[in-house]
Amino acid sequence: MLAPSVSSPLLALDSMDADRERIESAMHEAVRTPDRYLNEIASHLIVAGGKRLRPVVAVAAAQVHGAAASYDVVRGGVACELVHLGSLYHDDVMDEADTRRGVETVNAKWGNLQAILAGDFLLARASEIAATLGTEVAGLLARTIGWLCEGQIEELRHTYDVTRDEESYLTSIQGKTASLYGTATRIGAIVAGHDRVVIDALTEYGNAYGIVFQIVDDILDITATNGELGKPAGHDMVEGVYTLPVIRTLAVEAPLSAELASILGTPLDVDQRDRALAIVRAGSGIASSIATARTYVARAEAACDDIPDSLATTALRAAPGALLESVAVHA
Amino acid sequence: MLAPSVSSPLLALDSMDADRERIESAMHEAVRTPDRYLNEIASHLIVAGGKRLRPVVAVAAAQVHGAAASYDVVRGGVACELVHLGSLYHDDVMDEADTRRGVETVNAKWGNLQAILAGDFLLARASEIAATLGTEVAGLLARTIGWLCEGQIEELRHTYDVTRDEESYLTSIQGKTASLYGTATRIGAIVAGHDRVVIDALTEYGNAYGIVFQIVDDILDITATNGELGKPAGHDMVEGVYTLPVIRTLAVEAPLSAELASILGTPLDVDQRDRALAIVRAGSGIASSIATARTYVARAEAACDDIPDSLATTALRAAPGALLESVAVHA
Repeated sequence: MLAPSVSSPLLALDSMDADRERIESAMHEAVRTPDRYLNEIASHLIVAGGKRLRPVVAVAAAQVHGAAASYDVVRGGVACELVHLGSLYHDDVMDEADTRRGVETVNAKWGNLQAILAGDFLLARASEIAATLGTEVAGLLARTIGWLCEGQIEELRHTYDVTRDEESYLTSIQGKTASLYGTATRIGAIVAGHDRVVIDALTEYGNAYGIVFQIVDDILDITATNGELGKPAGHDMVEGVYTLPVIRTLAVEAPLSAELASILGTPLDVDQRDRALAIVRAGSGIASSIATARTYVARAEAACDDIPDSLATTALRAAPGALLESVAVHA
Repeated sequence: MLAPSVSSPLLALDSMDADRERIESAMHEAVRTPDRYLNEIASHLIVAGGKRLRPVVAVAAAQVHGAAASYDVVRGGVACELVHLGSLYHDDVMDEADTRRGVETVNAKWGNLQAILAGDFLLARASEIAATLGTEVAGLLARTIGWLCEGQIEELRHTYDVTRDEESYLTSIQGKTASLYGTATRIGAIVAGHDRVVIDALTEYGNAYGIVFQIVDDILDITATNGELGKPAGHDMVEGVYTLPVIRTLAVEAPLSAELASILGTPLDVDQRDRALAIVRAGSGIASSIATARTYVARAEAACDDIPDSLATTALRAAPGALLESVAVHA
């Protein structure tokens, strides 16, 4: 998954510079092991960088009453980021991917066996952190890992399926992406000791933010240039993963949608991919996907109405809209 | 990993018939999900059967004061068994294995992607159960998954390494096998509310039992017939995993050990495998591995001295010796 390149209002929070240092140190701390070989493999994508968006939203969620986030909040957010990284290790094995975040993938550098094991190790360390934060957090993180699997299985079951519908898409991205954002904000809120109304509002916020994030990611896979993506555009279509812009394009009654349906359904060569990209870019699928994402932006903003006002709340409220803006300029 | 075919004294416990029904039902309950496709994949190896040794030792550990084991104890043992199953799903992807427990592997039947995800799902469900049993159990299970990864990575790092030493072997099997038995007995003891001395003794017992289990498994890979194993003997050597009998054979100064060293170090064809098997079978490596396993049998028995007398304690005390007997008759 591509992290859309956006300067999020969350990263502009005054506290965030210091928090980001705490996040980085907690990330490295979490994967420490006496086994230097495993340590190197498990640290590989951490060293490669990343926006650490899950810890960032967890910290912001904790700060909505104005007080600083505790180190336990940081660790709770880091647990979510480790789950994300572990799933990337496993994704890259499944995709036989060679590069990620500008560096070799773990499977390409060390082998599939190592990537699977190190992914398991990251999930284990995430669960270990969660256990130190109480049974509610531990249970929630475990359920979330289950949701991730369910979401990915839903996607997998519909690869190369030109009849895939919107419900399958939304179910899948809720599980594979949004639930981990919802859990990150929820853990931040629980560990910070917020009351239940605020905890639930922040969970709703995180889930909606996550849906926006994934729709934006899927739009960028169609609209961005290869240079912006760091990989060829249209990767999802080549792999048989038909996302919202494609589903919407296929649903429109027009000669183009019939042509698109005739191209898709099997792996694509370069010419087929470029033609499919041209069709989706030319139609209304992108614009209508942006419109759908906008409803989730509105949902995230509405959730903020149940959260006390603070600098963090303002940043949270602005973040999903800013994320969507970043892709709307392409479309 | 092969479960040595032995009628364990643990399975002869009067209570065990009823407990085994509870174990089976808890296993199926644990992987229930609205997604029928995922449910089918995640249940695949559960349906294929197995001795459920980790729940069995957890239940026995809980019963050392004579009282029946609670359903929470059963669930704690089942969490350990799910971790084991999840690791088998991932092992089979790494080994590109086709059959397991007499049925097609998940990767062969559904694909590697499905096997990796369903393995993750089993680990997640195990963690979810553990979280309901308190932070001590949740943290312990998470640490144990980490130990499993460390043990497997240690093994992986020494594949095709003819200079692999005994310390590497013991470190690896402590992590990849014994720790999960130690955790199963520990969880049984914790959930049953035993005092700390008994909890620690049962942990020591479980770890020692697990070492015996793995050495027996590794000996059987050399000594058993293909029919008994359900796969060709010598599989570990073919895959470059040099276990205790092989390490011991290589360590003996004799022409045969030099010949064995010259054969190993790379993947083996059938003739090389058969010659390597003949060498290990002819030497003292098997007998000296049994002698080492016997020291762990003694360790497990000694741990029972710190556990109150009961039918369960008697069964626990007898189990590792009976397991080792089952392989000694081959040797």
